[in-house]
Amino acid sequence: MEVLIMKKLLAANDDVAAKNREYFAQHSLYVINLMGAPGSGKTTLISAVAKRVGVPVGVIEGDISSSIDAERLNGEGVKSVQINTCGECHLDAQVIREGAQQLGMDNAVVFVENVGNLICPAEFDLGEDLRLLAASVPEGDDKPFKYVPMFSYIDLVALTKCDLKKAVGFDGGNFRKGLGLVSKAEIIEVGDKGASGADKVAEFIKERFIGKTGKR
Amino acid sequence: MEVLIMKKLLAANDDVAAKNREYFAQHSLYVINLMGAPGSGKTTLISAVAKRVGVPVGVIEGDISSSIDAERLNGEGVKSVQINTCGECHLDAQVIREGAQQLGMDNAVVFVENVGNLICPAEFDLGEDLRLLAASVPEGDDKPFKYVPMFSYIDLVALTKCDLKKAVGFDGGNFRKGLGLVSKAEIIEVGDKGASGADKVAEFIKERFIGKTGKR
Repeated sequence: MEVLIMKKLLAANDDVAAKNREYFAQHSLYVINLMGAPGSGKTTLISAVAKRVGVPVGVIEGDISSSIDAERLNGEGVKSVQINTCGECHLDAQVIREGAQQLGMDNAVVFVENVGNLICPAEFDLGEDLRLLAASVPEGDDKPFKYVPMFSYIDLVALTKCDLKKAVGFDGGNFRKGLGLVSKAEIIEVGDKGASGADKVAEFIKERFIGKTGKR
Repeated sequence: MEVLIMKKLLAANDDVAAKNREYFAQHSLYVINLMGAPGSGKTTLISAVAKRVGVPVGVIEGDISSSIDAERLNGEGVKSVQINTCGECHLDAQVIREGAQQLGMDNAVVFVENVGNLICPAEFDLGEDLRLLAASVPEGDDKPFKYVPMFSYIDLVALTKCDLKKAVGFDGGNFRKGLGLVSKAEIIEVGDKGASGADKVAEFIKERFIGKTGKR
């Protein structure tokens, strides 16, 4: 019975995700579902990319409680709305639709900062254009072997906190090996809170924004 | 309907957790539910404490897939059984009962290494004696403000990877403030893969093991 309900929930979610895709296309929004473990550097990555991408950026912030991240980004001039999931461990398509309407932007890159969790968010299509994972170096190089559904769900990895590689003994070869077993996702290395590498993530996103919307 | 099913699931889980408590008492097991985000250093903490605690240690390893952690601990001589949750984001009381029987130990400290997740495990009582959170310094000092259900659920925090405090600019005062808002949990600082601080965690656990079981 639990499985049946879950299947119904996911089917309903997929319907809303399909409608989100239409909405995003109408409004020339390129939408990025940014996932990652707690403390993987998702907000810092958004902040660093927003400064470098050269197109308007909006953010839908998901957290189980608090509005720390949205306040931080708004304080930096990045328009952000906060969604509290009241304990739920993921965002779904319906709340993203409401968030996008609340954001009220056109011709923009929209980051959805998902709840910090390497498991549940990989089950919910939001209607996004890009599935981006922030995986941080201190989490360890074995994560692609252990969180297979997430690592096989994503299009791009931002490997964050690369400045800590030596301090934590991160084996980049092992990480690439694990990722390669389950995914064709590219890896972009980011460090020093985005001072290195965030320009490459920004370039990747800008190209695809232009490709989708024809806007510059 | 979803909420109703969840309530029934949790009520059923609590019944099994109560039976687990009886089983653990009969077998003189002191059971620790070790939770934490992916890459927070849970396995490393178990390894370091097992070497220092001076009583037999067994481990029930929970992962959504893979047996990397159980293999590592067994390789170090720490008896471990692996539970794969096949994608589920938490352990429940029933799988812990099965894991404890498979482990087949008496007069021991048993670590349950929960799935790497700061959200869902805080809803499932396992019948444990101690709820221990591995929170790592690189995750950031704001986590107690953001993951309130987990930080209010726990009895003890092992603040891991303290050797990285300077490198990541960790504000210990902010972390303590956030924790203090929702919990009376004590913090023990651990660093250098347990070379500093794991002795204190081991001492904390040994005292309570003796207090519960009367064994030495």
